[in-house]
Amino acid sequence: MTEQFERILITGAAGALGSRLREGLRPMARRLRLHDREDMGAAAAHEEIVRGDLADFASVLEATRDVDAIVHFGGAPMERPWQTVLDSSIRGSYHIYEGARQNKVPRVVYASSIHAVGYYAVEDSVDTRAMHRPDSLYGLSKCFTEDLARLYYDKFGIESVCLRICSCFEAPEGRRHMWSFLTYADMIHLVRCALRVPRAGYTIIYGNSDNEENAVSNRYAGHIGFRPRESVEPHRARVFDTTDAPDAHATDIRHVGGFLCALGHPDDSDDWRV
Amino acid sequence: MTEQFERILITGAAGALGSRLREGLRPMARRLRLHDREDMGAAAAHEEIVRGDLADFASVLEATRDVDAIVHFGGAPMERPWQTVLDSSIRGSYHIYEGARQNKVPRVVYASSIHAVGYYAVEDSVDTRAMHRPDSLYGLSKCFTEDLARLYYDKFGIESVCLRICSCFEAPEGRRHMWSFLTYADMIHLVRCALRVPRAGYTIIYGNSDNEENAVSNRYAGHIGFRPRESVEPHRARVFDTTDAPDAHATDIRHVGGFLCALGHPDDSDDWRV
Amino acid sequence: MTEQFERILITGAAGALGSRLREGLRPMARRLRLHDREDMGAAAAHEEIVRGDLADFASVLEATRDVDAIVHFGGAPMERPWQTVLDSSIRGSYHIYEGARQNKVPRVVYASSIHAVGYYAVEDSVDTRAMHRPDSLYGLSKCFTEDLARLYYDKFGIESVCLRICSCFEAPEGRRHMWSFLTYADMIHLVRCALRVPRAGYTIIYGNSDNEENAVSNRYAGHIGFRPRESVEPHRARVFDTTDAPDAHATDIRHVGGFLCALGHPDDSDDWRV
Amino acid sequence: MTEQFERILITGAAGALGSRLREGLRPMARRLRLHDREDMGAAAAHEEIVRGDLADFASVLEATRDVDAIVHFGGAPMERPWQTVLDSSIRGSYHIYEGARQNKVPRVVYASSIHAVGYYAVEDSVDTRAMHRPDSLYGLSKCFTEDLARLYYDKFGIESVCLRICSCFEAPEGRRHMWSFLTYADMIHLVRCALRVPRAGYTIIYGNSDNEENAVSNRYAGHIGFRPRESVEPHRARVFDTTDAPDAHATDIRHVGGFLCALGHPDDSDDWRV
Amino acid sequence: MTEQFERILITGAAGALGSRLREGLRPMARRLRLHDREDMGAAAAHEEIVRGDLADFASVLEATRDVDAIVHFGGAPMERPWQTVLDSSIRGSYHIYEGARQNKVPRVVYASSIHAVGYYAVEDSVDTRAMHRPDSLYGLSKCFTEDLARLYYDKFGIESVCLRICSCFEAPEGRRHMWSFLTYADMIHLVRCALRVPRAGYTIIYGNSDNEENAVSNRYAGHIGFRPRESVEPHRARVFDTTDAPDAHATDIRHVGGFLCALGHPDDSDDWRV
Amino acid sequence: MTEQFERILITGAAGALGSRLREGLRPMARRLRLHDREDMGAAAAHEEIVRGDLADFASVLEATRDVDAIVHFGGAPMERPWQTVLDSSIRGSYHIYEGARQNKVPRVVYASSIHAVGYYAVEDSVDTRAMHRPDSLYGLSKCFTEDLARLYYDKFGIESVCLRICSCFEAPEGRRHMWSFLTYADMIHLVRCALRVPRAGYTIIYGNSDNEENAVSNRYAGHIGFRPRESVEPHRARVFDTTDAPDAHATDIRHVGGFLCALGHPDDSDDWRV
Repeated sequence: MTEQFERILITGAAGALGSRLREGLRPMARRLRLHDREDMGAAAAHEEIVRGDLADFASVLEATRDVDAIVHFGGAPMERPWQTVLDSSIRGSYHIYEGARQNKVPRVVYASSIHAVGYYAVEDSVDTRAMHRPDSLYGLSKCFTEDLARLYYDKFGIESVCLRICSCFEAPEGRRHMWSFLTYADMIHLVRCALRVPRAGYTIIYGNSDNEENAVSNRYAGHIGFRPRESVEPHRARVFDTTDAPDAHATDIRHVGGFLCALGHPDDSDDWRV
Repeated sequence: MTEQFERILITGAAGALGSRLREGLRPMARRLRLHDREDMGAAAAHEEIVRGDLADFASVLEATRDVDAIVHFGGAPMERPWQTVLDSSIRGSYHIYEGARQNKVPRVVYASSIHAVGYYAVEDSVDTRAMHRPDSLYGLSKCFTEDLARLYYDKFGIESVCLRICSCFEAPEGRRHMWSFLTYADMIHLVRCALRVPRAGYTIIYGNSDNEENAVSNRYAGHIGFRPRESVEPHRARVFDTTDAPDAHATDIRHVGGFLCALGHPDDSDDWRV
Repeated sequence: MTEQFERILITGAAGALGSRLREGLRPMARRLRLHDREDMGAAAAHEEIVRGDLADFASVLEATRDVDAIVHFGGAPMERPWQTVLDSSIRGSYHIYEGARQNKVPRVVYASSIHAVGYYAVEDSVDTRAMHRPDSLYGLSKCFTEDLARLYYDKFGIESVCLRICSCFEAPEGRRHMWSFLTYADMIHLVRCALRVPRAGYTIIYGNSDNEENAVSNRYAGHIGFRPRESVEPHRARVFDTTDAPDAHATDIRHVGGFLCALGHPDDSDDWRV
Repeated sequence: MTEQFERILITGAAGALGSRLREGLRPMARRLRLHDREDMGAAAAHEEIVRGDLADFASVLEATRDVDAIVHFGGAPMERPWQTVLDSSIRGSYHIYEGARQNKVPRVVYASSIHAVGYYAVEDSVDTRAMHRPDSLYGLSKCFTEDLARLYYDKFGIESVCLRICSCFEAPEGRRHMWSFLTYADMIHLVRCALRVPRAGYTIIYGNSDNEENAVSNRYAGHIGFRPRESVEPHRARVFDTTDAPDAHATDIRHVGGFLCALGHPDDSDDWRV
Repeated sequence: MTEQFERILITGAAGALGSRLREGLRPMARRLRLHDREDMGAAAAHEEIVRGDLADFASVLEATRDVDAIVHFGGAPMERPWQTVLDSSIRGSYHIYEGARQNKVPRVVYASSIHAVGYYAVEDSVDTRAMHRPDSLYGLSKCFTEDLARLYYDKFGIESVCLRICSCFEAPEGRRHMWSFLTYADMIHLVRCALRVPRAGYTIIYGNSDNEENAVSNRYAGHIGFRPRESVEPHRARVFDTTDAPDAHATDIRHVGGFLCALGHPDDSDDWRV
Repeated sequence: MTEQFERILITGAAGALGSRLREGLRPMARRLRLHDREDMGAAAAHEEIVRGDLADFASVLEATRDVDAIVHFGGAPMERPWQTVLDSSIRGSYHIYEGARQNKVPRVVYASSIHAVGYYAVEDSVDTRAMHRPDSLYGLSKCFTEDLARLYYDKFGIESVCLRICSCFEAPEGRRHMWSFLTYADMIHLVRCALRVPRAGYTIIYGNSDNEENAVSNRYAGHIGFRPRESVEPHRARVFDTTDAPDAHATDIRHVGGFLCALGHPDDSDDWRV
């Protein structure tokens, strides 16, 4: 199959997930444009590197020009103080959608998060039509962008697939990951599915692998065609051997958002870090 | 396993699907009775050929005598002018159910269609309890027969399984088929499942293969036991290579009914054809 | 308030309900056009009388010309043999909607019936999004027309309000009427509400008065603005005094469709009457 | 009844609704603290006037000290350019909730808006558990604050009642107001209900009067005890006499958000005004 | 209206509610049979007094002979030790339904309780189809009897109306009663509605008066025809004046079950009393 | 993986399922305590045998001391007279939960049954949030214990997983088993899943194998991680060959509870047996 797209923009391309998409999306477009405020190394022949800050609208407007699709993985990657969340994630996402609107980009694939609904209990089997229940400023910024995406779909016809990524790391580390883990390969596959479908409309979908346990439901997202191909199960024995049985009533075990539910409010110091 | 049924009637037996059922249902009954107004060739030893028009009640009454089950695939196979739909599909289906009632046939498997709910959007994940949203006179006649079947179940105890067949052809041809395609083998399997279950009651079930993408939900039809065994995926590369990316907002891409949603109203000329 | 409409067509204008609408809708339009195959007496100054059969498309096409709204109360008024239902109600309703389409009439108010969902139990609290469960050929024709109306809304933008009238008579006669009764005044008010709202879209609404008991739910139809103003309660003592306590398990008491659920299938004789 | 509260803070106290609450809430607290960046005139004996900008956290932190409840009606009152919405409504609301958290204020009553769900159709009967569908940057900021309130409830136990006010003006002006109108007296009553209930938890409730027509549902908000006491009906004749029948398919008639659905994107000029 | 019933049995007839039903149901039956293990005073001309223990099946079998309907208000009236709940409420209710079955009594009206679902939050708007969430052994025995009633309906056709009575006392005493209060007159009216309807099937209905606040929903029980005629509102000022503002997060304020949610487990001593 | 638990109590350890759990759970705990009133043979080195009656609280209190989890499979294994059900299953389950509370056991895995909801029809696709519909005293005792478990979760934080086991035998015997069959290996796997998850909360889950047909839905129980590994399909040919086609309308075929729905009420003789 030849590439489906002429040019895809990836934001957050220097990040943990973005850098993997840089490899993973290569077959889908003739050119990949990469955006981040961090160094992204040298551009390959099929790549265009645009360094800039999501908080800078001029930069974003430029980055979104002449692209067929945006894979928006930029923004604060975890709980941060309000000003950081505001600039990177709220203002940044607004700039992305305004860029898409002004540059007539038809579809955005957005890295939302399980933390948009983190306060549901594991046993709630939360689906993609449930109300928001953010567990952090981070989660709140994901809610904001999901609603922003909805507005731009209803009003301007820009399609969005909001990926509520659960736990996407190199390897699982705790028992909660037995349901929430998403392998890097499945993450890339999920983005590719969201890009390839002829009709996305406005869709929310959870991102976790084909694990035996599952605390969220994609029953309303079958049209995206995401069937995870990997599983956390090969890691089960190691995870159980290296962790203690948790308290089932602890906030971070009870809720799908995990430890962000248990985390206090970030203070405003510049060096506040989870 | 010996045959489960003594005699099954297949209507529309000369049609694209009916002729395949003629082969596919052979193991299920000692005798197959075949009904169509078109030529069906010669009868095999286990077959009974009854040529006639569904619009002729006397013929249908005769065809439905002494059968254990009816597999009703007859009627106009696609959008047609009103008078054709009325005669073949509305009056024809009424004749089938009246035949079943007068001849005490306990179960009907009916070839309904995705076009009974064609105006739902792909991202609606429409299930089998949703309200009708026909996309054509063809779809309207499917709605009518589903409701007719419901009446005959509630009032007279005749069981029905209404198969909302999506796209059942030799091979997929467009990107919408990536979710809607039903292989012939899976179609036959679906009919066999609908026949073999001890209890069908009144059930609606979608007919599409085990494709990665899926825009409809059989979550309320698990008791039928239909697990498709084939998939459209082997065709994906060819389909993508030979088709252009569609406009996600076009009526025929947005709605599960596809091009019938985009089609105008049929005029009344005898030679009107989609 | 001056009349909201220039010309409203009322079908079935000689019938029990139609004749009351002839009076009741007078303030809403400068001219009322009345259609029926029965004699309607002399036309008042603001009236146009068109005698004809709904089964005759030419007559319906003529009747629907130059009207702002259609109040479609014509068709077989109760369970009848198939051929009668087919001609008066199925073909007749198709003609009405085709007339509306060809003559660009923007809205139809249709006399559907509780019998479109007659097999729900009284304790089901059936709402307007539930699947059809017709209890008779009469009910089946109501289901057909509701689906027809949905098609013409989704495809051609013609708005419809389908009134599922429960029991609209001069006075209540049995204990089932304690929930199902709709007074003539409330029936007229319901039609006026359906006509006056700026936006109807495609809406189904139950028609019963403000009775203490209620077995159906209009929770999804509040936008129509129908608040019944009368009640069956003044009749309670008389109804209870003149009727025996019914068997709670009898088919006609259990289901919202009442005696039509208990009625057998109509035979095909011309003089079959409930 | 003596005052239930010691001190209530009203933000946006100089606004159209805030100034009416200044009168209306007088019986509920021993002292009212009023906050706005506009002039609020002289303070009465029971009043404390704090002039300041919601975008200034220090000012908000001060204003929220020593209050029992916050009635948050401040922020941009209608569609505005992004920077204005961001400062007044997004940053402003965050400051309010942070003020509440740091000052241990147990409950916030927030002036959300129908525009948080403006893209639902009138016939959808949208309830308070439906997903957000904002129709404007204004609506988007309401979605943000509702989610912010949810976070502060789930994480910090601060109760919120989010009032999705529909159309609260001096008098109704168009036919859409026949369902959406909220009289000033009912608006005040709604705020008082939200303050007086012993348990609010996190609740969303629509604010419209007891109008005959209604396009939204408070079926999940009965515990607030809001029963509107007035109605738009006395205005019906005048409204109908002075307005033309609208096009039922026009964006602003079809959707509950009205004209904000039809409005384009605000440009960034300082003097942009709806 | 003459009496609808020949003979109604009231259990718990010496209790706070039962003694009021003794007066209130007088017009509904030619004879009232009263059952309790406590003294019930002298029988009026239309009364039959049967003293006995619900835990004694022989007594119950005798008491249920030749009655048209059973109004089952007996059993432990509040949280009690397990053995008491078991004998009075679990074994007692079983005896009642077995008596009904053996004596062919067609309908039972049962005093269930809000405590069958006490752990739902006030803001959940719990309806009558929600799963049980008992808050006490008392509530658990109500759940048991509701399920017992369901079994006897599904298997033996005995109709039941389970009244989830909220707070039925002489006068309201706390702010929770502002939604939960049921006046004695409304309680009697509720029982009469449950008796008079021609079809009850198996129905659960909440019992609270027409209070402005309401934390439960009877949206699926409209067919019973219960419209409360009184309200707690006349008591509001007194209740607010005589009580302190509660903590919204306290267990007994948060949950519909009130103080039973906050109560510990009863010990097994004979004199344990709430 | 080393054993997850220090000591698990299995009740009903001499029964058909309990004896298999005795083997199957061996890898999960350092010690297994086995309880039954029947002989359990000799204890292995890792086993503790406690013979006693569930109806005897002292015995149960002792058995539940110092255990990490309880696997409660004791009680009457099928329909029995009331007194037996009361003692073994209702009183017995109460004793188990009281033992768990007094001995601070954090989790119970309970052998509930499909008979707690036996009166749903096969085509209802009943899920785990549906209301109870017991089909027998046996099923009623399962409902009771599920509600008891809910109370002890909501009030005391004891987690429960209620396994609604469908048909767990050596081999399937009738066509209903084509959906309901649970192999012994899958039963053991189900219990292990219920024990191993870090968070169970209060969860209900159906127990049937990965059969093609399925009449129940675990869509809300994915967090338990139960994916059956076996199927009834290898038995299909034999089952069909050795059984007649059933009547689809027969009570035991129509309802998920099977023959218990068709069974009459048990009489009170000691030797009554299904």
